[in-house]
Amino acid sequence: MASASKTLHLDLGDKSYPIYIGTGLLSDKNYFDQHIHGKQVMIVTNTTVAPLYLQSVCELLDEYQVEITILPDGEQYKTLETVNTIFDALLSAKFERSATLIALGGGVVGDMTGFAAASYQRGVNFIQIPTTLLSQVDSSVGGKTGVNHELGKNMIGAFHQPKAVVIDVNTLDTLDQREFSAGMAEVIKYGLIGNADFLHDLEVNMHGLMQRDVSLVIDAVYRSCEDKARIVAEDEFEAGKRALLNLGHTFGHGIENTLGYGTYLHGEAVAVGMLMAAKLSELEGDLTAYCVDRVVRLLGQANLPCDINKEITEAELLEAMSLDKKTIDGNIRLVLLHKLGDAYLSQDYSHDNLGQVVRDFIS
Amino acid sequence: MASASKTLHLDLGDKSYPIYIGTGLLSDKNYFDQHIHGKQVMIVTNTTVAPLYLQSVCELLDEYQVEITILPDGEQYKTLETVNTIFDALLSAKFERSATLIALGGGVVGDMTGFAAASYQRGVNFIQIPTTLLSQVDSSVGGKTGVNHELGKNMIGAFHQPKAVVIDVNTLDTLDQREFSAGMAEVIKYGLIGNADFLHDLEVNMHGLMQRDVSLVIDAVYRSCEDKARIVAEDEFEAGKRALLNLGHTFGHGIENTLGYGTYLHGEAVAVGMLMAAKLSELEGDLTAYCVDRVVRLLGQANLPCDINKEITEAELLEAMSLDKKTIDGNIRLVLLHKLGDAYLSQDYSHDNLGQVVRDFIS
Repeated sequence: MASASKTLHLDLGDKSYPIYIGTGLLSDKNYFDQHIHGKQVMIVTNTTVAPLYLQSVCELLDEYQVEITILPDGEQYKTLETVNTIFDALLSAKFERSATLIALGGGVVGDMTGFAAASYQRGVNFIQIPTTLLSQVDSSVGGKTGVNHELGKNMIGAFHQPKAVVIDVNTLDTLDQREFSAGMAEVIKYGLIGNADFLHDLEVNMHGLMQRDVSLVIDAVYRSCEDKARIVAEDEFEAGKRALLNLGHTFGHGIENTLGYGTYLHGEAVAVGMLMAAKLSELEGDLTAYCVDRVVRLLGQANLPCDINKEITEAELLEAMSLDKKTIDGNIRLVLLHKLGDAYLSQDYSHDNLGQVVRDFIS
Repeated sequence: MASASKTLHLDLGDKSYPIYIGTGLLSDKNYFDQHIHGKQVMIVTNTTVAPLYLQSVCELLDEYQVEITILPDGEQYKTLETVNTIFDALLSAKFERSATLIALGGGVVGDMTGFAAASYQRGVNFIQIPTTLLSQVDSSVGGKTGVNHELGKNMIGAFHQPKAVVIDVNTLDTLDQREFSAGMAEVIKYGLIGNADFLHDLEVNMHGLMQRDVSLVIDAVYRSCEDKARIVAEDEFEAGKRALLNLGHTFGHGIENTLGYGTYLHGEAVAVGMLMAAKLSELEGDLTAYCVDRVVRLLGQANLPCDINKEITEAELLEAMSLDKKTIDGNIRLVLLHKLGDAYLSQDYSHDNLGQVVRDFIS
């Protein structure tokens, strides 16, 4: 099968890397060979993705010593314990510092494989092959890796950049509709935080996107990665601007943490969180009700939830939100919207307004 | 009590930091205050060190929210599981990204605290207060952090530089003689790999050093840290020259791994390993028998072992050595000596000679 792709570059000095986006990439070894320097390759995937794509990827790697680790599927397995099983496999196979890890799967596989690569022998190379929309547009790009702790999401991890990100949108063919929608939440995020043109195009094209029109999907993935790459290049370690990418995430992490991972998909929780941020921005006098309605409509078109709809108290949610990494001196720092396509970081919002928004969403 | 110190600087661009070496430093908050930026401080120590120095350090930190984690003492606890108890404590106390961790103890405490600092919320600040000779001259400087895995030593970790290293040689007063000797092995290492003058001075002064003459000890610690800081500044991530610091370590890690951690102290295993490297260098035609004898004599003066003296087979030791991080394409890369004070990396030594050395030491 022929491959066709567009290439983005994430510019981080000697840690720069390409992001390939297209179709048929998992049948073309050119996307991999140049980024593997040693002889040893460990593919890390999960029980859902392995039957679908593992064989194709293995066939591209016939010149290497290939080992495979298959993890259980699900956010609830994104733990230090699971990462340790990757270390077990690497050490049992005597993998050296020159080894390359390949993450084949969604965000959970990518985050854990990346953290294993960051920590094995204090750092080895890795390549991301994201197979879900969410991981293609967000988690595979930018080098954030890590695992959850029972007291908080992504609390343990490292910044460790991959050597390449290979995005084959053909892998979305096997993604179920709910996962596809969850990924669309992060696509919409890029529009909301800094790209009003993209947001407008998403409003125009959401029907076709949800039908998975290939050229629309490639365009949406490309523009999402383009925005993310630009922001990460400016602020790799999240000292400033990168934090805008967390729009909806502090709310979302709070929701996930309170309900338990797996009740809402991450993207679903982020969708609700983005709407909560929009509502708070409205109460703060920034966003108009019309703009909030546009967000509601777009999330609805993407089949994303617009409320929490589960048993949860205001105190529980605020407590879980305060454990997020964005907390400074006990104040929950939130991403809010001046207008659609213009986000900012705030600790100065009214706590009454925050309480109001939380109550509106849990009732 | 008055403090007196000399300061070294490890030059790593925006990751540069001072190394303070002297007496009375644990009674002077000036060494700490300027390196703590947030309000939250977690002191990590162990059951041996806590009764000795924890109170002094706490008294310096009365302006902060101080939490304490006391780990069990011993290399056998240097595991991911133990590090996870630090994460538990950090999260239970709601520690934020602005928090500072302080490692108060020997190399095991420093390595684990450093790895926890590297990984908590993808990286927070930490300060090293090494209380053993070994950690003062070696492991607290240079940013190598990590834990052991049952299949290999220091296999999981990160490069994460501290904000400061505070070395109070008064803490050596409570160090037992065997631990002091083990630390002296690393001091001798600096002489052997690249500092013939220092090696000569150690031969002259070893008696006084073993009596813990304060000015001799300060001088030895200072010159050790000076050499280490220079090498790390040149090669932070061990792409080249830094590997020379591993003289004796591949043999030593093999010994520790085969016998189980705790049979030999790390420094004792390194001492035997350095002598094995010297012997191999002799068989390779580099080092004279006289020079090897000088090494034997110096190790003896420092009460360090010169043989393995335990049940262990050649195959076991070579197998354990091959798992070390220095292995490339299955070849064990070793640090050997052209002459005393001039080390080099080699994969080209005769495997027969290596076998001969191993057999000589295990019989």
